[in-house]
Amino acid sequence: MRSVAILGIGQTVVDEAWDRSLREMAGEAVLNAFHDAGRETADGLFAGNMMSGIINGQNNLGALIADWVGLRGTEAVKIEAACGSGGAALRSALMAVSSGELDSAVVVGVEKMTDRHPHEVTAALATAADADYEVDMGVSFVGINAMIMRRYMYEYGWKHADFAPFAINSHANAMHNPYARLHQIITTEDFEKSAMIATPINLLDASPIGDGAAAVYIVPAESLAPGTPRVVIAASAAATDTIGVHDRKDALTLAAAEESARLAYRQAGISPDDIDIFELHDAFTIMCALSLEACGFAECGKGVQLGLDGEITPQGRIPICTRGGLKARGHPVGATGIYQAVEVVQQLRGECGPTQVGGAAIGMSQNIGGSGASIITHIFKKE
Amino acid sequence: MRSVAILGIGQTVVDEAWDRSLREMAGEAVLNAFHDAGRETADGLFAGNMMSGIINGQNNLGALIADWVGLRGTEAVKIEAACGSGGAALRSALMAVSSGELDSAVVVGVEKMTDRHPHEVTAALATAADADYEVDMGVSFVGINAMIMRRYMYEYGWKHADFAPFAINSHANAMHNPYARLHQIITTEDFEKSAMIATPINLLDASPIGDGAAAVYIVPAESLAPGTPRVVIAASAAATDTIGVHDRKDALTLAAAEESARLAYRQAGISPDDIDIFELHDAFTIMCALSLEACGFAECGKGVQLGLDGEITPQGRIPICTRGGLKARGHPVGATGIYQAVEVVQQLRGECGPTQVGGAAIGMSQNIGGSGASIITHIFKKE
Repeated sequence: MRSVAILGIGQTVVDEAWDRSLREMAGEAVLNAFHDAGRETADGLFAGNMMSGIINGQNNLGALIADWVGLRGTEAVKIEAACGSGGAALRSALMAVSSGELDSAVVVGVEKMTDRHPHEVTAALATAADADYEVDMGVSFVGINAMIMRRYMYEYGWKHADFAPFAINSHANAMHNPYARLHQIITTEDFEKSAMIATPINLLDASPIGDGAAAVYIVPAESLAPGTPRVVIAASAAATDTIGVHDRKDALTLAAAEESARLAYRQAGISPDDIDIFELHDAFTIMCALSLEACGFAECGKGVQLGLDGEITPQGRIPICTRGGLKARGHPVGATGIYQAVEVVQQLRGECGPTQVGGAAIGMSQNIGGSGASIITHIFKKE
Repeated sequence: MRSVAILGIGQTVVDEAWDRSLREMAGEAVLNAFHDAGRETADGLFAGNMMSGIINGQNNLGALIADWVGLRGTEAVKIEAACGSGGAALRSALMAVSSGELDSAVVVGVEKMTDRHPHEVTAALATAADADYEVDMGVSFVGINAMIMRRYMYEYGWKHADFAPFAINSHANAMHNPYARLHQIITTEDFEKSAMIATPINLLDASPIGDGAAAVYIVPAESLAPGTPRVVIAASAAATDTIGVHDRKDALTLAAAEESARLAYRQAGISPDDIDIFELHDAFTIMCALSLEACGFAECGKGVQLGLDGEITPQGRIPICTRGGLKARGHPVGATGIYQAVEVVQQLRGECGPTQVGGAAIGMSQNIGGSGASIITHIFKKE
């Protein structure tokens, strides 16, 4: 297998883009990635998307986007792993290029969520959960995460305000990301008094939906001139867990995060101590704690402490959500995994201004589909 | 890249399976493939599916099926390319195994379509077309194919009855396939008098929807004991075309079929003359003609003649739809590409009874997503 490098990145602002279509947003991200890579074509296009069939009445997304961006005729496909679709698409493209089947690929994550009534979007998001054994019982996707958070608070003795640092960090970092959905500093007081959604999850625990697209352009590392600075994908791993949370031995362990991180560390030949930044999947604040614990940055039940100790900020021991994370950059679900990859590359290139992590050389992204059912972990390295 | 062999196949009857769920059908096909392969686990699961989000309220399909079949924890993902999802999933899995990333994979195509009102299914199928420029104008998916067929008849002077041999052949072959949806011999008279859907397409031009699942189990060929008979994937290629038919230079040329077949022939080092059977995508009879022409079995406008000359039957020059095709085996859309692969393997193994093609050694499958937008071609070889 060949080593694969990320040659270009592109993204759109995450927003309520009522004046632009699905294909237009995907196209903007792809063309930005082409421009950044200095390329005009690619051997294959891989689209990460969860809900275009439900929300936009549009499947066959690979062919749609390929034609729109000038790749008419080129192989193209859509990959779905719920909110993990972006990460899964990157992994599929990576295998296509590392295998030698393709010599270049563009991976685009895209989701257009705000053209429908929020009730319809809530129903569409619930398709990430178990339709027969969770959703049919009346629980929403936020509801499932709320039960996990409540159990965590009960089991380990944390109070709601202890989760505030996760949201505060993401909002603070997004202030310096022009592509972020929310530009608004928040305080612990704001966090505590914001509107309840599904107790104990309130508005500032939850990431906002949005319309957005992000893209990366990948090539075999061997195709680049020797000595050219590049970001390589040092590891790529995916794992699954039960789709229904009730089927797990322990609702507070993200087994698929543990497993995919374990595989990724092994592939890259590193340990958690070597990770300089970690773009994790903070769909809800509770997921920050669980992800940090599953990936070896904190013991079980102690992830919250990292936030309270200031260790998750750009100056901390394990900076997370350095461009705003899902919480403030926004969470256009199928695009999120590619936004994470783009943001890690920005850090490794040193392009992050006030939230730049000094000397960042190794970054990790973790994209979660469902309440921990499909998890994809990538490690990127500056060479 | 490593050569990849199909070690096991599995399928369910295509039917209105109101008593079984999406996961149960997928599970039956996967477990049958495991049994046939003599294996109990796999390194990865790839699900081909188009509409589970819309019709079944279920995304995150990879994780769902992986858990259900006893592969909890295993990497799993869903691939979507409209009605070409099955073929696209096979190609993704193939790249994962040929690259060395996985040492085995199970690919399952599944679609559960009959639990909803036909109007809802028609709307869901239309998501394979261009939502903004075709569907919003009020044209259904059948309507698009009807316009193509009418133009073909006008351009080349064929009459409707000339297409009858395609449907008659598929129905005749399905009589000997216990997994087929329709077991009913039809005549040219039946064909001509059946109910109109969208002129000139009538009921017997069109494939029936259905619930179904099919699976193949793949491994590196090098992992099998030397001398063991096996079916290998000799070629795999995908191409796209404009999603909207109006955007094409010529509505009667399946450019993505031409291109993917050209690539596949080159990979396998063969020509159309070497193909012993061809499982093509007869969603509508017109697609038989266009596929045969695009893949080099007939000149433009002459595909229909192959049917009239009896060349498409199991005894003919290029046997197609030997197990009933989409027309009579049924078309559970995301599953169809895997049914095709299963059926080619059955032919190459010599398991097809009265529709066995004598001495079949090389078979091809072609899976089409949308009105020719996403096309995936595979060539299989007995070794």
